[in-house]
Amino acid sequence: MEYVFTPAAEKLKPSAIREILKLSSAPNIIPFSAGNPSPEAFPVETVNGIIQKIMQKNPIGALQYSVTEGYVPLRESVKKYMREKYSVGNDSDDVIITCGAQQVMSLCSTALAGAGDTILCENPSFVGSLNALKLTGANLVGIDMEADGMNIEALENAIKNNKNVKLLYIIPNFQNPTGITTSLEKRKKIYELAKKYKFMILEDNPYGDLYFDQAPPAAIKSMDTDGIVIYAGSFSKVLAPGLRVGWCVAPKTIIAKITAIKQTQDVHATILSQMIANEFLTACDFEGHLEFLRKLYREKAALCIEKMNEHLAPEIEFQAPSGGLFAWCKLPKEIDMSEFCTLSVKEYGVAVVPGSAFDVKEQPNGHFRINYSTPTNEQIIKGMALLEELKNKMLNK
Amino acid sequence: MEYVFTPAAEKLKPSAIREILKLSSAPNIIPFSAGNPSPEAFPVETVNGIIQKIMQKNPIGALQYSVTEGYVPLRESVKKYMREKYSVGNDSDDVIITCGAQQVMSLCSTALAGAGDTILCENPSFVGSLNALKLTGANLVGIDMEADGMNIEALENAIKNNKNVKLLYIIPNFQNPTGITTSLEKRKKIYELAKKYKFMILEDNPYGDLYFDQAPPAAIKSMDTDGIVIYAGSFSKVLAPGLRVGWCVAPKTIIAKITAIKQTQDVHATILSQMIANEFLTACDFEGHLEFLRKLYREKAALCIEKMNEHLAPEIEFQAPSGGLFAWCKLPKEIDMSEFCTLSVKEYGVAVVPGSAFDVKEQPNGHFRINYSTPTNEQIIKGMALLEELKNKMLNK
Repeated sequence: MEYVFTPAAEKLKPSAIREILKLSSAPNIIPFSAGNPSPEAFPVETVNGIIQKIMQKNPIGALQYSVTEGYVPLRESVKKYMREKYSVGNDSDDVIITCGAQQVMSLCSTALAGAGDTILCENPSFVGSLNALKLTGANLVGIDMEADGMNIEALENAIKNNKNVKLLYIIPNFQNPTGITTSLEKRKKIYELAKKYKFMILEDNPYGDLYFDQAPPAAIKSMDTDGIVIYAGSFSKVLAPGLRVGWCVAPKTIIAKITAIKQTQDVHATILSQMIANEFLTACDFEGHLEFLRKLYREKAALCIEKMNEHLAPEIEFQAPSGGLFAWCKLPKEIDMSEFCTLSVKEYGVAVVPGSAFDVKEQPNGHFRINYSTPTNEQIIKGMALLEELKNKMLNK
Repeated sequence: MEYVFTPAAEKLKPSAIREILKLSSAPNIIPFSAGNPSPEAFPVETVNGIIQKIMQKNPIGALQYSVTEGYVPLRESVKKYMREKYSVGNDSDDVIITCGAQQVMSLCSTALAGAGDTILCENPSFVGSLNALKLTGANLVGIDMEADGMNIEALENAIKNNKNVKLLYIIPNFQNPTGITTSLEKRKKIYELAKKYKFMILEDNPYGDLYFDQAPPAAIKSMDTDGIVIYAGSFSKVLAPGLRVGWCVAPKTIIAKITAIKQTQDVHATILSQMIANEFLTACDFEGHLEFLRKLYREKAALCIEKMNEHLAPEIEFQAPSGGLFAWCKLPKEIDMSEFCTLSVKEYGVAVVPGSAFDVKEQPNGHFRINYSTPTNEQIIKGMALLEELKNKMLNK
């Protein structure tokens, strides 16, 4: 049998990150390639206690079918939390609980864009989201990044030069892979452009709580008086990704439609996971846990940047991140990106992700991404020294 | 903002079942409308023990990101179980773990069919799957059912009269909603037609283990020497639907493609759920639990049919099911289906699902579906008496 896939499915390649993640799960590989929370970041004892309580009090509820919109107490807690802490969501909005924030991108792009439409996004951007957007069959147009977010002139040109712009995808805080945070000014401009040209903004915020010193600017969704912003939140980086619990705050009409689509994808998110997330958000010291995570990642980032300054600079360029999990590194033009990343994992046992994985057209861009949350401190120290050896070898030093 | 959805998303309506399920979750409503396992069916103590063991031995593994294909030990256990017990899967096949079997329909139809293609299915059939198939934008063509499965002549005509037939969706065992089991002869004919006309078969088997006396005929996938059958299995009816764990056995090329699509939908299924399922399948008395479930549902079905004979017959017609969770009931032509189902829940507090919910064109078909796994025995006894009152009222008796 010769299998014929739909054109959009045919084009879809397995995520380079997840393929490298498989390689990097081999023993002895230093994992700068993942986007995983640090093993130290998991509140194991607290989660254990929560699970025992749930399974004593409501085991049938945890094991039975539930509604697609999500476990009602969690929906309410998330709604309240997002409104009170971030001014995200108003009376025209609703909340759905998803199987990780990834599902928000899948559901919303499936609902809103298809063949003949255009979706705009930052370039580079998170490969999992890019693939979800591409799978709709829409034309995905990347907007180059500046230090404070998308190039607004390039954005306006893209809006004018592409037909049927339906959606703009953005990770405004500590973006994956660049670490860039979009300025408040640019957030406002992007909102005004969406309003003027009548497209929706899909605001993905997995890292916003993981700032090192200063909280990032207000969410674009907090400015949404016109019902044009969809917000994706996640417990993956602030509790546990294995649970697969994310959420979406969006206008009620959008939530109703993506609920119907979610019914066709997976009926509902794992109910025990939703119960755990609700208990953790409401009955444990969630804010204290966020503080703990900020300290943990601030320290790991500081160590990583110190070692990068020592071993990679000045030939390899990077900005010290102010939050999130990643550093985006620019190779000198003498070093080929693909060769560097391949030699790195195969000959030095250090896995980094080639920048092409995050490029909208999957083209080499002379960058690679470093993650500092997954490796141990010892691995960061050793890994950076190994990358220096590779750099020197490739520069014939 | 006026929201414009893609044509396929625009057509998608929230599943009638899930909407009625919401109504039927109100207190005092007798739930003949659900497809839920009986509350008595959950092995709560065993699952509790499993969770405690997992959270003691490998809490980080249970909370961290994992690979899209699924928790490796579960993939291996499912592969072995399906091969040894059902002859499902060979060396050309692979296995992926999904977020419930529902996701298999979503992934495979997304991969294989789109606008301009045709998908064939039984009519009536499970609304969640029908919606997944429709969302691809393909033309969904329903084949009328006979007592032993699809009308094969109608199937051949549909193959010849519709262009680009890519996929045939079938629930061969104790079909939802009809309870019909496709005969071995028809399974073979359907396989030969797929081979001849070069389309894939999507075999959905959530109820096969829930037979009352005799196991159903061999899976179509067990005949698959040509790599044309995709098999969807589920832990929802034999362990717990809240966990959201299903699986797919299919040719390796198909599994690779739907893995890439699954990355865009939800990255992976909840890892704790997968660990629970693996432990339950391999280290507990899974076969004994299946025996227990068969006995439980055999008895509930027997009571339900006894009461239906007493209260609904002869005007309302039905077959005694030989497995699964449903009885499919035909109203006399004097009674309007929609009116019956609406009055039933609103005035009598008895929720049943109108047959139109399962019709490919969503048209009234003079039927309704009864589920006997969710209601208590007392509710079955009381509910059938109430349905008799409604029947008599509508027949002016």
